[in-house]
Amino acid sequence: MSQHPIATLDASLIPRLPASSPTLFEAKKAKNLSFEAIGEAIGRNEVAVAALFYGQAQASPEDIKKLSELLDIPHATLSARLSGFPDRGRSLEMPPKDPLVYRLYEIVQNYGPAYKAVLNEKFGDGIMSAISFSTKVEKEVDDKGEWAKITLRGKWLPYSRF
Amino acid sequence: MSQHPIATLDASLIPRLPASSPTLFEAKKAKNLSFEAIGEAIGRNEVAVAALFYGQAQASPEDIKKLSELLDIPHATLSARLSGFPDRGRSLEMPPKDPLVYRLYEIVQNYGPAYKAVLNEKFGDGIMSAISFSTKVEKEVDDKGEWAKITLRGKWLPYSRF
Amino acid sequence: MSQHPIATLDASLIPRLPASSPTLFEAKKAKNLSFEAIGEAIGRNEVAVAALFYGQAQASPEDIKKLSELLDIPHATLSARLSGFPDRGRSLEMPPKDPLVYRLYEIVQNYGPAYKAVLNEKFGDGIMSAISFSTKVEKEVDDKGEWAKITLRGKWLPYSRF
Amino acid sequence: MSQHPIATLDASLIPRLPASSPTLFEAKKAKNLSFEAIGEAIGRNEVAVAALFYGQAQASPEDIKKLSELLDIPHATLSARLSGFPDRGRSLEMPPKDPLVYRLYEIVQNYGPAYKAVLNEKFGDGIMSAISFSTKVEKEVDDKGEWAKITLRGKWLPYSRF
Amino acid sequence: MSQHPIATLDASLIPRLPASSPTLFEAKKAKNLSFEAIGEAIGRNEVAVAALFYGQAQASPEDIKKLSELLDIPHATLSARLSGFPDRGRSLEMPPKDPLVYRLYEIVQNYGPAYKAVLNEKFGDGIMSAISFSTKVEKEVDDKGEWAKITLRGKWLPYSRF
Amino acid sequence: MSQHPIATLDASLIPRLPASSPTLFEAKKAKNLSFEAIGEAIGRNEVAVAALFYGQAQASPEDIKKLSELLDIPHATLSARLSGFPDRGRSLEMPPKDPLVYRLYEIVQNYGPAYKAVLNEKFGDGIMSAISFSTKVEKEVDDKGEWAKITLRGKWLPYSRF
Amino acid sequence: MSQHPIATLDASLIPRLPASSPTLFEAKKAKNLSFEAIGEAIGRNEVAVAALFYGQAQASPEDIKKLSELLDIPHATLSARLSGFPDRGRSLEMPPKDPLVYRLYEIVQNYGPAYKAVLNEKFGDGIMSAISFSTKVEKEVDDKGEWAKITLRGKWLPYSRF
Amino acid sequence: MSQHPIATLDASLIPRLPASSPTLFEAKKAKNLSFEAIGEAIGRNEVAVAALFYGQAQASPEDIKKLSELLDIPHATLSARLSGFPDRGRSLEMPPKDPLVYRLYEIVQNYGPAYKAVLNEKFGDGIMSAISFSTKVEKEVDDKGEWAKITLRGKWLPYSRF
Amino acid sequence: MSQHPIATLDASLIPRLPASSPTLFEAKKAKNLSFEAIGEAIGRNEVAVAALFYGQAQASPEDIKKLSELLDIPHATLSARLSGFPDRGRSLEMPPKDPLVYRLYEIVQNYGPAYKAVLNEKFGDGIMSAISFSTKVEKEVDDKGEWAKITLRGKWLPYSRF
Amino acid sequence: MSQHPIATLDASLIPRLPASSPTLFEAKKAKNLSFEAIGEAIGRNEVAVAALFYGQAQASPEDIKKLSELLDIPHATLSARLSGFPDRGRSLEMPPKDPLVYRLYEIVQNYGPAYKAVLNEKFGDGIMSAISFSTKVEKEVDDKGEWAKITLRGKWLPYSRF
Repeated sequence: MSQHPIATLDASLIPRLPASSPTLFEAKKAKNLSFEAIGEAIGRNEVAVAALFYGQAQASPEDIKKLSELLDIPHATLSARLSGFPDRGRSLEMPPKDPLVYRLYEIVQNYGPAYKAVLNEKFGDGIMSAISFSTKVEKEVDDKGEWAKITLRGKWLPYSRF
Repeated sequence: MSQHPIATLDASLIPRLPASSPTLFEAKKAKNLSFEAIGEAIGRNEVAVAALFYGQAQASPEDIKKLSELLDIPHATLSARLSGFPDRGRSLEMPPKDPLVYRLYEIVQNYGPAYKAVLNEKFGDGIMSAISFSTKVEKEVDDKGEWAKITLRGKWLPYSRF
Repeated sequence: MSQHPIATLDASLIPRLPASSPTLFEAKKAKNLSFEAIGEAIGRNEVAVAALFYGQAQASPEDIKKLSELLDIPHATLSARLSGFPDRGRSLEMPPKDPLVYRLYEIVQNYGPAYKAVLNEKFGDGIMSAISFSTKVEKEVDDKGEWAKITLRGKWLPYSRF
Repeated sequence: MSQHPIATLDASLIPRLPASSPTLFEAKKAKNLSFEAIGEAIGRNEVAVAALFYGQAQASPEDIKKLSELLDIPHATLSARLSGFPDRGRSLEMPPKDPLVYRLYEIVQNYGPAYKAVLNEKFGDGIMSAISFSTKVEKEVDDKGEWAKITLRGKWLPYSRF
Repeated sequence: MSQHPIATLDASLIPRLPASSPTLFEAKKAKNLSFEAIGEAIGRNEVAVAALFYGQAQASPEDIKKLSELLDIPHATLSARLSGFPDRGRSLEMPPKDPLVYRLYEIVQNYGPAYKAVLNEKFGDGIMSAISFSTKVEKEVDDKGEWAKITLRGKWLPYSRF
Repeated sequence: MSQHPIATLDASLIPRLPASSPTLFEAKKAKNLSFEAIGEAIGRNEVAVAALFYGQAQASPEDIKKLSELLDIPHATLSARLSGFPDRGRSLEMPPKDPLVYRLYEIVQNYGPAYKAVLNEKFGDGIMSAISFSTKVEKEVDDKGEWAKITLRGKWLPYSRF
Repeated sequence: MSQHPIATLDASLIPRLPASSPTLFEAKKAKNLSFEAIGEAIGRNEVAVAALFYGQAQASPEDIKKLSELLDIPHATLSARLSGFPDRGRSLEMPPKDPLVYRLYEIVQNYGPAYKAVLNEKFGDGIMSAISFSTKVEKEVDDKGEWAKITLRGKWLPYSRF
Repeated sequence: MSQHPIATLDASLIPRLPASSPTLFEAKKAKNLSFEAIGEAIGRNEVAVAALFYGQAQASPEDIKKLSELLDIPHATLSARLSGFPDRGRSLEMPPKDPLVYRLYEIVQNYGPAYKAVLNEKFGDGIMSAISFSTKVEKEVDDKGEWAKITLRGKWLPYSRF
Repeated sequence: MSQHPIATLDASLIPRLPASSPTLFEAKKAKNLSFEAIGEAIGRNEVAVAALFYGQAQASPEDIKKLSELLDIPHATLSARLSGFPDRGRSLEMPPKDPLVYRLYEIVQNYGPAYKAVLNEKFGDGIMSAISFSTKVEKEVDDKGEWAKITLRGKWLPYSRF
Repeated sequence: MSQHPIATLDASLIPRLPASSPTLFEAKKAKNLSFEAIGEAIGRNEVAVAALFYGQAQASPEDIKKLSELLDIPHATLSARLSGFPDRGRSLEMPPKDPLVYRLYEIVQNYGPAYKAVLNEKFGDGIMSAISFSTKVEKEVDDKGEWAKITLRGKWLPYSRF
């Protein structure tokens, strides 16, 4: 378990997020729960939970029920604010300005053609889906320090022939 | 081993790549070698090899020696063309237009704030290094089809206090 | 059959296209073949053929063989120039400047949220794939004049739950 | 009939939409009506209805009357908010960030020149109108899964000779 | 008849124009013909002729024949270079940098909403076509000096109801 | 006289317009007056009136007096809100997203160099003024339908020699 | 000690800063403290303090305690507003418009490749970290006037070999 | 003295550099000289020398003479290629894509307002000159590793009062 | 003395200006004072005064005292709102949309390289300071009409040699 | 007379300049003439001459004759290369990267609204023409150093009333 503080939402970010985001983040702060803890409680990966909090993933009826109980948010309130289909991509301006997120962008910029070449050689002409997709974040520690490991896993979609 | 053709370099891409790229890709094509095969031969990961071919990674003297032998490129020629420090980021215009690379960009756009929140909770205030960093691509097959798995692993760098 | 001239490639466009494009367009012009005629000859839709000519689709070995015969291009030449994996999206700068292509862009701009809402209501949270995808162009004539009909058909991909 | 929830409007999107949008979406949500159901009730295609809700299409006096009755919005209120000429294109920033809408943009980016070549060969020099235009969304199911089909149909307009 | 020199093509502009442009402009210069004179000779408006020279309009077979004779360009050469469908919009980067063209852009920027309001009031919801369209330039002289008058005339296209 | 509804101002557009715009548009709507009717009443062209409503033209003291009477706006109120010098160009983001306004932009993009060449041949080196300038919109009807005609008339300004 | 007034926060900048910024700046103004004075009081460099005020650096619990005491801000208030992880980069639009900040940008623009070449020669292939990083500002005075000296000091990170 | 290879110029970068750059870099490579060594030989800082090689600084007649001798470039050749006034800023596209240079850009982005506040408090209203300016790069080694130190020193220019 | 109305501030511009701007402009309007009149009263050039009103120049304590008296603004109010260091460049988006300001931008665009060449020949390698700088606007009348004359005067700063 | 070297043209700038530019600059270099000297010889201001060399101003037949004689360029060659109408604005990308030209851009950015306010108060609603316009550069020396003075003088054009 981490000794670090939990992630919260600064009020100045609210205008670019869906109406559900401040509701969720306030409750998370009040309960002092990490995304990992919430994920374990509702049976989803912590990255998916964080994406849901930022309006980047859809909540199922079960998610809503569990989040409502865990976070003490009235079910009707939460259900109303999470009822729509996510309008993804609004929580971040590209290119990212925050250094942590920029590093991910830089990895795409620097290794993008290499990934493409290797993926094409392994799978042929197609793409790795970002929809039929899951991801996770892991922490590894060795004598050189701490390492972050991000795994991206997506279904391979070959181009249709027509 | 893959049944797919190998990745080659279209001549129209040459102007935005370093002088070493066409030399390397032509030899790769002549030998019909995948990046995986080259990586195994020279002891480096295939993504690193592809990055090196696109001018996004530096070759060590041993890399140059082994590539020269493997690809039948005169050592002096290869050494001269790979002698500089890479000027990274030039092989790709952002946002990426190719759908395969765009999907990686989209993952950053959609999950960027979620990754940041989860990483901050796990590690504190800092970034995952894209320099003290390695990556790999794997292929998984199950009854639903083929899956691409990309792993990003970077040293965690906490912000200095000053 | 159309009474209109066939589409050709202006030399000034070559620098932003793959090396196969001028080869293919010159042979098409010499044979005076429409994309419809080529598509019928090789068993592919005319839009796919045009996309292949612009470097936006991959040719199978059979495609290469048939195109080589139909267009009198030496098989080795054509095979060499079409051997790579397409680096898609390079043939067009966005937003499109040509009025015909701009109208398609405008349809996305004006109806994009409406398509999203209707698709979400019909299919749930997900996307219409642009990879597992086919398209066609048809001509309809009635007493008001000529009508172009473009059909886009893609596999529905629901977001994975993780 | 779909088992999926209906599309609603997140409050954070209101500033970039006309004043009629929140009024219409709130009533739609209260009645729990899909765009398909509304379209059938007022005799218009569901995509046109969704476009009207997003301020991308004009409502006729009959549309206003029927929507007022169907959605229990006072006629004067609805009439006042829908009385202007649509200022189209404001509901979406380009390039689209949401993956569903981006896929449509990507289709234009990748197939734009192919569409142009095929349309020119079929119709000559001109454009497919996006004004004298209709569109529809259909769902097809086969043993491979669900497929979305979008049809674009526009009048062909040849360039005037002057 | 004007006492001013004729418009010519600077060599540095050639890369962004179709292959027909330098051929046409060189012949125009050799014959010292204004666009007005060419327009009269081939029966087209001078703006249409200039647009044709810049690759923004299509030449009919009769245009090609007459231009070939008037400009002493071999018919086969001219026909080959003018045979494609124009890829419009490539001759100008927007916003325009040249002050003369910028003034036209500024008129759209400043009066755009006013034109829209007035056109909507006169015609209803729709657009003035830029395809079913003609334009002309006239010179007027009065005691205050010289005045340029540009007329834009396009078919009114009402939005389809669907 | 037109059978079409009059142009009104959607509330969501107010933030990018001067303070006078909502005052004027509300009064126009209350009186149900077209710009043509207002223009006739105050002795100005309807495009100039619409530009004035959008903050793109200056009102003279007589204009303010007449508008105040015609629209039943207290003179002091109107005078205060129209007293400044217009800060032009703020009512429209370029490139325009609305199809009607985009078509005008497209005309500049496609015909800009042609206009320049023809104007230079007729007038020499200079520009058509967009300041010492007037414009009007006319409607023409023939057996092919309705046509919009926009006239731009500006003083020719030759470059000074220094 | 400086005779110059202290830096304050204009109210119009608040929307792009985190919620802690106005709280901190108001207290700083009330106490009339320079960043240098605050830095000395809490044991941090003045640039780090200013970055903290702009939401570009994280406050430790001790920082919060000391700032609370120094600035007479209730500890709970300050702690709540500074509890999140900084979302860096939001306080400045690039390229910078303010001349002072633009000069720093210009230094990167003009000397960027020179810094890279010299750093590569001194350290090999890698980067100077902006995370494991400190900076300071000093004032020097000589007979030619006043000089500002900014020092950037970052850990050298060599690219990993993989 | 460094054990690292020297910086060289990749041929693909030549088009965006002045004519003197390839001449200088080729000679540097032939002599295998670092910028530090060249700087010592001609009496200038190594960053200034690198800037001169990239066309970002002017060479004095003495610089040209010494460089000519040191690098065995005919004086007349070097003098001709270095005779112009530098057109600065052309060697780098902003934002920088290379990670090393991006980190410097990121420092400006993240600390820009902090630098401004601290400089204003120390010096009043003005800027640090980037013209009356010098810079240097130093290497420091401690038990945590290697550190790069960049010093920026510029004359303080107060805003004139007028 | 001018017969023209004075410049005022439209309320819709307030969000992008510092808090002092509306205070100053309202008082100016109430007193019906031109910038010329204010400049004479406080002993500064009218352009500097206007820049101060737009937050582009700093007010000295004497300026604040005199403005307070002249404009009947309580000294404490004005002092508080003008106490910060200007964050310049925020009052204008570039490229400018207003035609008057665009003409200045166009002069830089068209004559920029010419100014550079002439200044370099007169002064050597350096810049004209925009900080150690003053400017003024004058009106000249001759038989051809009215002429505006803008003078820019800045200290020449030669590049430091290091 | 200046002791500074004359301005020359770096070969890498040629592609964005008209065909006349290298011809003129080479001759200028061979004759070692400053723009001031050329201006005196042909009776035009040095800024106008430099603008002419960069393709930003038109040469009269007398200019061509005098330049031909002064620079020893065959009259037919020069006449051919200078015969077109200038396509202005191509010699500079905006925003300018070179610090000297950027300072002029910054002056417009910082003082643009102030100039507008002052000009409007002096002249009413209109613009200072950049066409009916002249400019000059002067050098002033006092005990504080050298000062550059740039004068912009343009005809005032009031907006037409229509």
